[in-house]
Amino acid sequence: MPQTRLSTARIRAAHKAINPLFRNTPLYPCEPLGQHLGCTLNIKLETANPVRCFKGRGTEIVASHLDDTNAKDVVCASAGNLGQALAWSGRARNLNVTVVASRSAPATKLDRIRALDATLELVDGDIEMARERAVDIARHNGIRLVEDSLDIETCEGAATIGLELVESAQPIDTVLIALGGGAMATGVGHVVKELAPHVEVVCVQPLGAPAMTRSWREKRVINTDSINTIADGVAGRRPIPEVLEDLLLVADDAVLVKEESIVQGMRMLFDHAGLVVEPSAALGVAAILEDRERFANKSVATIVCGGNVNMDAYHQWVMAGRTG
Amino acid sequence: MPQTRLSTARIRAAHKAINPLFRNTPLYPCEPLGQHLGCTLNIKLETANPVRCFKGRGTEIVASHLDDTNAKDVVCASAGNLGQALAWSGRARNLNVTVVASRSAPATKLDRIRALDATLELVDGDIEMARERAVDIARHNGIRLVEDSLDIETCEGAATIGLELVESAQPIDTVLIALGGGAMATGVGHVVKELAPHVEVVCVQPLGAPAMTRSWREKRVINTDSINTIADGVAGRRPIPEVLEDLLLVADDAVLVKEESIVQGMRMLFDHAGLVVEPSAALGVAAILEDRERFANKSVATIVCGGNVNMDAYHQWVMAGRTG
Repeated sequence: MPQTRLSTARIRAAHKAINPLFRNTPLYPCEPLGQHLGCTLNIKLETANPVRCFKGRGTEIVASHLDDTNAKDVVCASAGNLGQALAWSGRARNLNVTVVASRSAPATKLDRIRALDATLELVDGDIEMARERAVDIARHNGIRLVEDSLDIETCEGAATIGLELVESAQPIDTVLIALGGGAMATGVGHVVKELAPHVEVVCVQPLGAPAMTRSWREKRVINTDSINTIADGVAGRRPIPEVLEDLLLVADDAVLVKEESIVQGMRMLFDHAGLVVEPSAALGVAAILEDRERFANKSVATIVCGGNVNMDAYHQWVMAGRTG
Repeated sequence: MPQTRLSTARIRAAHKAINPLFRNTPLYPCEPLGQHLGCTLNIKLETANPVRCFKGRGTEIVASHLDDTNAKDVVCASAGNLGQALAWSGRARNLNVTVVASRSAPATKLDRIRALDATLELVDGDIEMARERAVDIARHNGIRLVEDSLDIETCEGAATIGLELVESAQPIDTVLIALGGGAMATGVGHVVKELAPHVEVVCVQPLGAPAMTRSWREKRVINTDSINTIADGVAGRRPIPEVLEDLLLVADDAVLVKEESIVQGMRMLFDHAGLVVEPSAALGVAAILEDRERFANKSVATIVCGGNVNMDAYHQWVMAGRTG
């Protein structure tokens, strides 16, 4: 049993606190896509909910805890999805939600955060700058800061995906998990390694934002200077030490993929699965594309973790060159 | 309680016989799309499963009954989705499945039927010709014929969508149901009218394939001569009398929509909900587009019943005119 910061009993309890809109999501084999990839591809679909990503699982837990303590204010930094989810969960409980994001985050994500009644503050700079600003706001106002991947609720929320994976009837050899801050990888990884340790846990990160993968490989925190990927949802530069420690206990591997593989993954998910996904959600397919032999004839699960994508960019990535 | 051919107790029992892959599908409010339509739009998503449509619910019931009787052969006519679903359910139980379809059915549907190991027979002519040929095959070989909408299992399977709708936490004023042969409309309608009679049941059919709607309006079967719609999944010409009788008991309204509304509905589902759907699955949104006032500020559920669409056609319908 992995000695992470997580507890499967707590994760089970957390599962019940999550609005049913966000849990028990579809998990199904997609044969047309699997045939193109040379494996059995099982899709765990986290986009068919009010915020089109998996982050609602964690924010439901956060918000229910805040509700229990009569707290009224909460702030987070977000690449765009956590902010939407916290805004949604907060609105449902009359919380005042502030989200700090990078001015360069996808406009569709920023628009949705505003539409969900959150206060949106934009910073010049990337997600790490937004994280610093959120810390300042929380300190200055004495309110709860939600730190993605560090705060246990965000990991527990993601971990409920793992519960659903291991308790399904689908036999799975390998689960592919998008790796950013690490909440999803450590959460799902914890449950898998405790309840189904034979299942391989493979994290996937873009070559253009490799900080956590490099840290995992070298077993120490390695910060990077810049971010160069379209996968905005997983684009961090400064891994959190506690999260890295957990990741070292639960991940069997961490791989880096090229931008063109991410784009090809998005295109294949569209063409052969009929799914509109954001770049981060195509990382699993990208990993298979870059190492088909490794996954050949295996039963692989990939978590399609988000579908919030600027449609103009999506058209350029996915439709380019089509004649239809 | 509507005195249809259906029984809610049987539908509840049938729900348990369906592979979990096909049931308890997402039902969620999609605010971005709802804002564009001027109502609360709740999506019941039936595309995130191995056959990308709702028909697996019914074929699971059919196939489990066949399994109980040790029958080994089954035939159906199909516009393309029932055939895929019966092939899937049959393959899982070692049944020999024959599907008769029109040569003009979408190639993607025909390809999937073949890929699922069914014997595919193509007829020149439309779905009504395929139905005649399937009857011949069944008679000649003495095997079970599955007749969509007439056979009670196909209605019960669809009706389980209704169970999930009325038992969800989402408050719903109106449910919009694509109307073709009538299995989904009578199935869902039966459950709604029995368990939540305040919910309005509105069927939606293309103007180019209006036989069942005209029949419902005139309370007698009206056949039509030709089909002129892109919504291949609901394109019949000869309503089944028993199904019409049930429909008369459970539908509050039946409306006809234009082809351009169907295309616009597909485009809006793509742009604002990130969903790739086949034309039949956009009928509900099309109905709202054609009568916004009627649905203004209501909580509407639309069943996104299928996503099997030729991608080249899809690109022409949905992407045309985009500059992105």
